[in-house]
Amino acid sequence: MEQPLILITNDDGITAPGIAALVLSMKSLGKVIVVAPDSPQSGMGHAITMNHPLRLEKVSIFDGVEAYQCSGTPADCVKLAVDKVMHRRPDLLVSGINHGSNSSINVIYSGTMSAAVEGAIEGIAAIGISVNDYNFDADFTAAMHYAKLIATKVLENGLPVGTLLNVNLPKGVLSEIKGLKICRQAKAKWVEEFDERTDPHNRKYYWLSGKFINNDKGDDTDEWAIENGFVSVVPTQFDLTAHHAIATLNTWNF
Amino acid sequence: MEQPLILITNDDGITAPGIAALVLSMKSLGKVIVVAPDSPQSGMGHAITMNHPLRLEKVSIFDGVEAYQCSGTPADCVKLAVDKVMHRRPDLLVSGINHGSNSSINVIYSGTMSAAVEGAIEGIAAIGISVNDYNFDADFTAAMHYAKLIATKVLENGLPVGTLLNVNLPKGVLSEIKGLKICRQAKAKWVEEFDERTDPHNRKYYWLSGKFINNDKGDDTDEWAIENGFVSVVPTQFDLTAHHAIATLNTWNF
Repeated sequence: MEQPLILITNDDGITAPGIAALVLSMKSLGKVIVVAPDSPQSGMGHAITMNHPLRLEKVSIFDGVEAYQCSGTPADCVKLAVDKVMHRRPDLLVSGINHGSNSSINVIYSGTMSAAVEGAIEGIAAIGISVNDYNFDADFTAAMHYAKLIATKVLENGLPVGTLLNVNLPKGVLSEIKGLKICRQAKAKWVEEFDERTDPHNRKYYWLSGKFINNDKGDDTDEWAIENGFVSVVPTQFDLTAHHAIATLNTWNF
Repeated sequence: MEQPLILITNDDGITAPGIAALVLSMKSLGKVIVVAPDSPQSGMGHAITMNHPLRLEKVSIFDGVEAYQCSGTPADCVKLAVDKVMHRRPDLLVSGINHGSNSSINVIYSGTMSAAVEGAIEGIAAIGISVNDYNFDADFTAAMHYAKLIATKVLENGLPVGTLLNVNLPKGVLSEIKGLKICRQAKAKWVEEFDERTDPHNRKYYWLSGKFINNDKGDDTDEWAIENGFVSVVPTQFDLTAHHAIATLNTWNF
């Protein structure tokens, strides 16, 4: 049987340690191809590049692994990979390992997760994986272990149609992790506190800044899992329809 | 009673005709404040600006309406508006009127809809409104009529917690529209066909291009409504959990 074809991307850029760790952990599962941004793309959400052309360049970064850097967003990388790089549809897409958590509402802002969502839209089994540690030299050994474990299960079982996985790990080493929980996205949000400054020309500017507020007390959420030492796995979808609200709106008598 | 406070934004930029039409249609419903991008931001998805500072500048574009242009993305505009511009939480956020449809999977890529999603995350009743006409001089009279109708209903009834509305109109004049349907997001997608070119320095570059493919045969989708002359209203949510898949994943015995 042909070995699985695995597309790897991220949003921290192709030189980030997290993607190197992911490549290492996936190499034993199949043929790996990397198409990742040539610069950091955190917080890019599901941006795509329509008004500028994209560059795609072959690079030798990962030992024995075909790799390309792309001038676009994470979603662009997946689109270009599928249309121009891969010789056939990949069996699996893994995005990460992200330096920082993409749990709860962060799934919306995350370039890591948008790459995985783009894969799922393309019909590819897709996983986004992140560690709750923003340090450049974060310890990825636990994430490598769980990436391999989860990818193996996904290759064996497939994923339900229209779903992908959002995997988040607590900061720390493998021996400290208590296990893995299937979770829902916590109802948490950022409260903005823009930092207002004045430039040397006496014009104001603003830095985005904020506090993360989690008022969701459920013990079945991704935030609960991470805070309590578990790996969270949230099945995630790109059908944004609030199906439960259709009946309500139908009573409005437009 | 205090009149409703209405925040207006878009992704085509503050000088686009669509936002001018929206301001006109909302002025009779309450006090309007505009915070919109200073340049086109289509396809920005839910991007936020973390690595650059943002500019925010008061402008006189709309007759008698307080307005600001912002150097950031549509999501940035909403965050800045809520934190730095509005004196109290707005009662309603309306994003648009977008030049081009944001039905089906386009909700994922759309800056218009990400602004509305950001509003909903902030707990504001939010509507994104788009017309299936990419022309700069598209006819917005029908969209203005429906924006006012739908905004009035939302101000009266509120929206179910965690939901917002994705409103899309067919191209054409008001008299041709057959009515309004509450819909679900069609299961449609773009198939990429990047246009590969060579620059004067003999280096390749790629333009994103593609075909929209709708294999969803349901007559309850947004695509069906628009194709058949109806306004589609899709209740939309930012909880991306695929709740139905949690039980399946729990059988995987991690």
